[in-house]
Parts: sequence; structure tokens; C-alpha cells
Amino acid sequence: MNFADAVISITDVTARDGFQMERTWIPTETKIEIINQVTAAGINRIEAAAFVSPKKVPQMRDAEAVIAGLFRRDGLTVAALVANLKGAERALAAGVDELQTVISVSETHNLKNVDRDLDTSIKEIGEIASLAREHDRALNVSLSTVFGCTYEGTMPVEKTVRVIESLTNYGISTFMLSDTIGMANPRQIYDHTTKLQKEFPRLLFGLHLHNALGMGLANVLAGYEAGIVHFDAAVGGIGGCPFTPDAPGNVCTEDLTFMFQEMGLNTGIDVPRLVNLAQKIEALFGRTLPGYMMKAKNVSFCD
Amino acid sequence: MNFADAVISITDVTARDGFQMERTWIPTETKIEIINQVTAAGINRIEAAAFVSPKKVPQMRDAEAVIAGLFRRDGLTVAALVANLKGAERALAAGVDELQTVISVSETHNLKNVDRDLDTSIKEIGEIASLAREHDRALNVSLSTVFGCTYEGTMPVEKTVRVIESLTNYGISTFMLSDTIGMANPRQIYDHTTKLQKEFPRLLFGLHLHNALGMGLANVLAGYEAGIVHFDAAVGGIGGCPFTPDAPGNVCTEDLTFMFQEMGLNTGIDVPRLVNLAQKIEALFGRTLPGYMMKAKNVSFCD
Repeated sequence: MNFADAVISITDVTARDGFQMERTWIPTETKIEIINQVTAAGINRIEAAAFVSPKKVPQMRDAEAVIAGLFRRDGLTVAALVANLKGAERALAAGVDELQTVISVSETHNLKNVDRDLDTSIKEIGEIASLAREHDRALNVSLSTVFGCTYEGTMPVEKTVRVIESLTNYGISTFMLSDTIGMANPRQIYDHTTKLQKEFPRLLFGLHLHNALGMGLANVLAGYEAGIVHFDAAVGGIGGCPFTPDAPGNVCTEDLTFMFQEMGLNTGIDVPRLVNLAQKIEALFGRTLPGYMMKAKNVSFCD
Repeated sequence: MNFADAVISITDVTARDGFQMERTWIPTETKIEIINQVTAAGINRIEAAAFVSPKKVPQMRDAEAVIAGLFRRDGLTVAALVANLKGAERALAAGVDELQTVISVSETHNLKNVDRDLDTSIKEIGEIASLAREHDRALNVSLSTVFGCTYEGTMPVEKTVRVIESLTNYGISTFMLSDTIGMANPRQIYDHTTKLQKEFPRLLFGLHLHNALGMGLANVLAGYEAGIVHFDAAVGGIGGCPFTPDAPGNVCTEDLTFMFQEMGLNTGIDVPRLVNLAQKIEALFGRTLPGYMMKAKNVSFCD
């Protein structure tokens, strides 16, 4: 078990993956306030919005206004999700620092999620990459269903290798490996991330995990042991994919942060502040959220 | 990360740690039926009851009748918790296979839990051990608050070493290391279990974990990596200590089993059967239980 004092880097996806499925409209100023609270708690990278079809994901229709309203403190990276060239143009015009796009390792899921086959997606990502380069902005890629797919079942790592190979020509250097439906187990996480880092030693890999089966933090731990230090997470453990049936919530930002802090790693993140925010989001949503820290009593933040 | 194909051994504590806090009376025949379902699902060791004061833990007052009613299939070990010599006499008379007693590593918690100081507890455990030996029955010891205590905070491993040393003279060979309030983190689990196995190479250690902060299965994983293969767990993730304020539920039998099965380890346990039982217990209790598998959709048991 490797416990080197790595720097853990968390991208909070509350306002994107966390909010996108919410049917009740979250006012723009509420979104902005929540994101500003997340970044004030010490989170240095956020996925703040998705520049996608307002018909398909109505909750994200105010993406421009959200980005415009954010407090951009020093050291903060504001990323946004884009699904095509048009979205990328909108996001760049809105002034995001980085673009995040998505492609599934599963052809079936890719069709459901972004409505095109893998070859078309890969070609379009090339166009987005060119546009991002013109604007001197990084493009990162989230790889969906890396570990398993509702439609195609358990995914061999070779499928991921093939998709990454087809994208490296475009100068993309950072890939988030997504357990879209929360099917992964620690051994699979460890094996996949180990193999991918070995196969592509110059690329950066992170994990985007959903906690369907209670293994969320066990999977985070397994990834960390394989050398992964970048994780997506959402406050309160909210979220899920609108085009994935019964998608479970993201791993929870404050729970994940607290685990690493308890393990002696300095994250620079103010957990009690995030717990407070999770409780506010719970009140806003009017239903119990999956996070643990927000419900815990007797937790000492001091040791 | 060590993924040797170890045999995972689970003691299901549903009927003891899971039920002891329930205020609503669970009829004896219901307890028996639930335990029989657990063992029919392939669990080979159960903590079936507690022979303790019926005034302090009224739910356990039918311990004799529960033990008498169990189906004792081949290969099944029926253990029961005892807190003193009188309880041990009752349990042995009732025909249990093994005795389980408890002592806290924290003096303060020991006083609250079993109403005596550590020295008195150690002496009494010696008497229970003699009695068990006379009856040719094993006595195992659960060490409470090994990782942290509501009253005394984070616990250094040296406190555990001292309590174990004081008990080894009695011929006790198996110790369950309990994270009574769910304060432990994976690094602490790994470090403690590694040190204890090194310090006492002839003793057997298991983990009794509670999932307060979402780290339950991450802690199981960390223990497994340190070489621990024996875990306590409760169906549906129910349970907690009646003398520990806000004690969280146990790690969940079916969630833990499923994680190890997904990791490729053969547990011999029928997870769907336990999921079905968890749903029945949820209906019996009339409230949502913490387990994940029992709520999961889209889970394939086939891969």
C-alpha cells in the first residue's frame, strides 16, 4: 500500500454532473453562489457548467450566465463540459479556462450519450482540440463507461486503450476515466489505471467515480494506490448521467477529501465548509443526499 | 496492492450487533428465521445472540431460545457475545460453538460498555477463558475502540498491544479489531493491522468495522491489503453499539461480499439471497437501511 504524500487534486463537478439531472430549475444566482462556496472552500478546479443542447439538458441552459457570474480567484481553473464544436465555441466565448469533452469507450453508450458513433465522436474531438489550441485553452477528455456499461457489460481495458490511441494525435494529455454507472470494483480500478499509466506514461489520468454499490471510496483508494491523484467529486454525493438509466451519484467531495485528510494528506480543502454547503444543497433539493460527512455526528475535525 | 486469492471469512453479526439496538421487539421466531436465511446463503460463522443483562439490552433477552431454534448445518459456527462469567455460563448451557467477549482499548469506553475498569475486565476474561476451555469451546475477543473512541479520541496502536499482551496468557488466539464508532481511515487500518500482525504473528486478527463516514469498504480493502481476511458484517448494514452515542451501522454483509466477489475472490456466499433478506429486514424495521446492493438497479451478478 503506497501512502506517499502525494498532492490530491479534486475537480468538483457539483454544478455540472451534480445539477444536470435536477428537474427543478436551480436559479442561475443559486448555481453561482454554490460554485463560489465550493471554490472558497479551497477546491482549485471546477466543472462549472455544460454547454450542451438546452433541449436535452434544460438545467444547463444558463451556462454562459453561470460562467460570467463566477468569482475567479487566483489559482482557480474553471472548466466546462462540451459535447460538440458548437458547445466548445460557446464555452470559449463564455471565458472558461479549460474544455472538458466526453466520449464513451462503449459504442452503444456513446450513441445514447452524444448521439453519434465512436469514429464521428473522435473526429469531432479533433475539431474541438484544434479550436481549443487556437484559443490557447486545454481540452481534457472524459472517457465514459471505462469499467462497465449498462448496455455492453464489463469493459476490457483494451477498448479504452484504443480510444485513447485515436485521440493522442490531437495533443490531448489528460483523461478522466469514468465509472459512469458505478460498476467498478477496486481490483478493476487498480488494474485498469496501472495498465493505462504504463501504456501511456506521458498522459495524465484521473478518476470520475459514481458510488452505486458503496464501493466509491474503496475505488478511490485503489486508484490512489495505483498512483492516481486526480478525482472528480460532487458535494453531497449528488449527480448522475441523464442518459444512463438509474445512474448513481458521484463520489462525495467532502467525504473523499476527509478520507485523504484523515490519511494524513494535506488537501488544502475546508471540509466543514463543504459539509455546511452540502446541508444547504440538501435543503434546496428537499431530499436526503447520499453524503456521509453531512450526516455524521461525533466527527472530530482536529485529529 | 495485494490481490492474492485469499479465502474471505465473514462473521455475520446481524442478529447480535444488528438487532441489539432495535427498540421494537423482534419475535424470537423472526430472529431464528433471519439467522437461518443468513446461514443458508453460505455464511459459515454467525454471532447469533448476546447473553447479557436483559435489563440493559432487552432485545437480547431471548438468547437461549434463539440458539435453541437455529438450524445447525455442517460447517456452521454459532458464536454468541458474552460480557461476563454469568453470560458465558448461559451461552455454554445454550449450546453455542464459540464465545465472543468484548473489552475496550479505551478505559472510558470500557466503563460505559461493560461497567468496569480494564484490569477487572481482563481478570474476568481470564475466568471466561478457563470456563470455555473446560467446555472445550473457543473464546474470541472483540477489542472495541481500537482506532478511535468518542471519549478518548484517536487511539494509538500501543494501547491495543497492551490489552492483547494482558490477554495472551489466557490462550486467546483470535481478536476482532473494532472501529466501534466508524472513525478509522484506511491508512490507520492498514498501519494498525500490519503492526499487530507483526507484533503477534501467532494470533489471528479480524476487523469489525462500522460505516459512519462512507469509508467502510475502503477500510475493509485496506485491511485486506494488510492481510486481514476475516470481517464482521451485518445484512443491510444495520446495527451499532447501545452504549456508544450515535453509533453508525456495521459494514454491510452483502455489499462487502459483492465487492470481494467482483474482485475475483470466491466467498461461497449467495449475494442475491442476502439482498433479498436485507429487503425483508427493511420491511420489518419499516425504515430505509444503509446497504447499497439492496437498492442497486442494473447490477449484473454474472460478471
